[in-house]
Amino acid sequence: MKGNIVVGQSGGPTAVINSSVAGVYSAAKKLGVKKVYGMIHGIEGFLEDKLCDLDEYIRGETDVELLKRTPSAFLGSCRFKMPKIEGNEEVYEKVFEIMEKHDIECLFYCGGNDSMDTVKMLSDYAAAHNKPQRFMGVPKTIDNDLPVTDHCPGYGSAAKYIATSIKEIIRDNESFGANRPTVCIVEIMGRNAGWLTAAAALAKGEDCHGVDAIYLPEKVFDIDAFIEKVRYLGSTKHSVVLAVSEGVKIADGRYVCELANENVLVDAFGHKQMSGTAAYLADKVAAETGLKARAVEFSTLQRAATHLASLTDINEAFQVGYDAVRAADAGKTGMMITLDRHGDDPYQCGTSAYDIHAIANVERTVPEEWITEDGCGLNENFERYARPLIMGELSPVMVNGLPGHLVRK
Amino acid sequence: MKGNIVVGQSGGPTAVINSSVAGVYSAAKKLGVKKVYGMIHGIEGFLEDKLCDLDEYIRGETDVELLKRTPSAFLGSCRFKMPKIEGNEEVYEKVFEIMEKHDIECLFYCGGNDSMDTVKMLSDYAAAHNKPQRFMGVPKTIDNDLPVTDHCPGYGSAAKYIATSIKEIIRDNESFGANRPTVCIVEIMGRNAGWLTAAAALAKGEDCHGVDAIYLPEKVFDIDAFIEKVRYLGSTKHSVVLAVSEGVKIADGRYVCELANENVLVDAFGHKQMSGTAAYLADKVAAETGLKARAVEFSTLQRAATHLASLTDINEAFQVGYDAVRAADAGKTGMMITLDRHGDDPYQCGTSAYDIHAIANVERTVPEEWITEDGCGLNENFERYARPLIMGELSPVMVNGLPGHLVRK
Repeated sequence: MKGNIVVGQSGGPTAVINSSVAGVYSAAKKLGVKKVYGMIHGIEGFLEDKLCDLDEYIRGETDVELLKRTPSAFLGSCRFKMPKIEGNEEVYEKVFEIMEKHDIECLFYCGGNDSMDTVKMLSDYAAAHNKPQRFMGVPKTIDNDLPVTDHCPGYGSAAKYIATSIKEIIRDNESFGANRPTVCIVEIMGRNAGWLTAAAALAKGEDCHGVDAIYLPEKVFDIDAFIEKVRYLGSTKHSVVLAVSEGVKIADGRYVCELANENVLVDAFGHKQMSGTAAYLADKVAAETGLKARAVEFSTLQRAATHLASLTDINEAFQVGYDAVRAADAGKTGMMITLDRHGDDPYQCGTSAYDIHAIANVERTVPEEWITEDGCGLNENFERYARPLIMGELSPVMVNGLPGHLVRK
Repeated sequence: MKGNIVVGQSGGPTAVINSSVAGVYSAAKKLGVKKVYGMIHGIEGFLEDKLCDLDEYIRGETDVELLKRTPSAFLGSCRFKMPKIEGNEEVYEKVFEIMEKHDIECLFYCGGNDSMDTVKMLSDYAAAHNKPQRFMGVPKTIDNDLPVTDHCPGYGSAAKYIATSIKEIIRDNESFGANRPTVCIVEIMGRNAGWLTAAAALAKGEDCHGVDAIYLPEKVFDIDAFIEKVRYLGSTKHSVVLAVSEGVKIADGRYVCELANENVLVDAFGHKQMSGTAAYLADKVAAETGLKARAVEFSTLQRAATHLASLTDINEAFQVGYDAVRAADAGKTGMMITLDRHGDDPYQCGTSAYDIHAIANVERTVPEEWITEDGCGLNENFERYARPLIMGELSPVMVNGLPGHLVRK
């Protein structure tokens, strides 16, 4: 590659999205790329020419290691939807103008479904207007809902955090209740895809009986059946722990969280800001069954807990960033790097570059055949799929008793 | 010691309460005590003769290490208030009857204020009735509100979890908001004492600007002033993160969480079950300022996150259990082991045994002179006090990608 490159981060942060930036940076340095720019707050900042030179912040391998251990988007993120090309050519021309100004040959964008749409639009525009610049997608989403790729960087660490915390919550919940059953309802992220909520199943093991039921957004949520199940569980055991997706919907299509709060906020992509599902259900359980009920919402913790990131996930996040640069160096554009699983035991995974058109705006949910017949659990197919993704740890660099982070000053 | 001993756990669990059981067990073994019994679900289970022999579960040093890394109460906990002696002599006689039945010479009880009351009542009864059995308190509470002792085992780990998670939340929150400020309100445990909420101050460091304000229950909470502060912060910076105690009260004495939900549950000790303070305030901020606002509630995670426990805390929890046995062996009774700080830098801490009457039912709050003048922050006195308590880590024993625990089967 003769020119410079730029890397940006977009959408909800993950525990390992910075590992992908580290991968892009490291590959570019290896290839002798002169300048690796970072977009400040994604394409939104890029359109305002807000860039930084990554060499300002990364001054050696220790900083690369610290970047890998830094949660959330080091460069800042955004939720910016590219307008349709027709009638908005000036927005697109602006992108190319800024790329030319800084001699940027290739743009790398780390994100999920919405961000891959940005890569698609920009590469389509380049193709249609014979522009030489190249655009590569680097997958990232705790939601794990990108198609084609076996899984998405960010998911494994969120799953590890969820399973670990669920185990700790089960321990906590079962410590009481000798004479009065205690119900704990845990709310987990995932608007339409239940991958994160499914990760609650991983808590189960030799030292943990696991959660009592898992409610995915892939299944219609029946509140009466839920209450009856909890009532039954409360009559047979002293500790009941349930995992519920923030995205569960009742039969008429309304989210459960909307039943609690009609004024749900909506973001730039039309996505509703979810919250309060577990609190609503815990109140209902207490009122209708008399059982002691508590709600726990993992909230942003599940996507920011780099202190407990999966080493497998960190390494793969790094790899997709690294391989995106190699693919671009080989002339590719309009593609996303996918993770391709070659085996479960031992787990083996490689990468390839795949046409962005097959990926952008497509959402992959948990396969029907991985969900147990009663609709409230996951079977061994999920375990086989997800367990390898949470394996391994990378010790945080502890400073004054807390994990240290790399920051832009 | 000629007879056997029994150890019990009571009240809200902590990340290191099992380390105290490990300490009791290890000291007893060293002294040649024949049997170390565990109460199943505290004094409540003990009154029903529910005991276990710890040797059934601890079969060597590896199990002791695993026990130290197991969150929540390994033996089960309870919230049982001993009735007043007069008119309830049969309850007290029952305790001694069970002790005699199992040849138990000394009872060790790990807990906070309410549990120390149990130790006091039982040792008072023994003294009044010339019973030879001895009773020792082992301090444990994330609330850190026991008097006399410099701090309480359990607090350091909760503080480390809170500070780490706050740092991750700040990273997450500041990734957005280039063009729209985002407010995150974090709710932290602590009914009357602000120690846990104060731990949010520890997030601040070279790589983190820290939270923007801290609201302790020691100060009257003024909702209007709060909203104005958030409005001002939102006009000057793009990321605003605030720490609020679940126990903040408005001027008329009502808890903020009661404003959201009038039907607050009450436990056996008359303590209200708190929840919803941050959600209530986030809704209010959004409605009154138009700022995007999110609530995060640490809930039980802050007391169960042994995966991130402080090594200092683990070691001290072990030590107070160990030294309680040594003190009992020396003939002491009706006392609690205290942690006595001898220096901050380097941090040094020893233990002694202290009269339980000066401890039971006394609550220690954050000193006025450690709170900043505006009432929304902590000064360097708190930092000097709390920082040493979160230092160090003990690697979890990872099994299948998750921290392994020791469990009763």
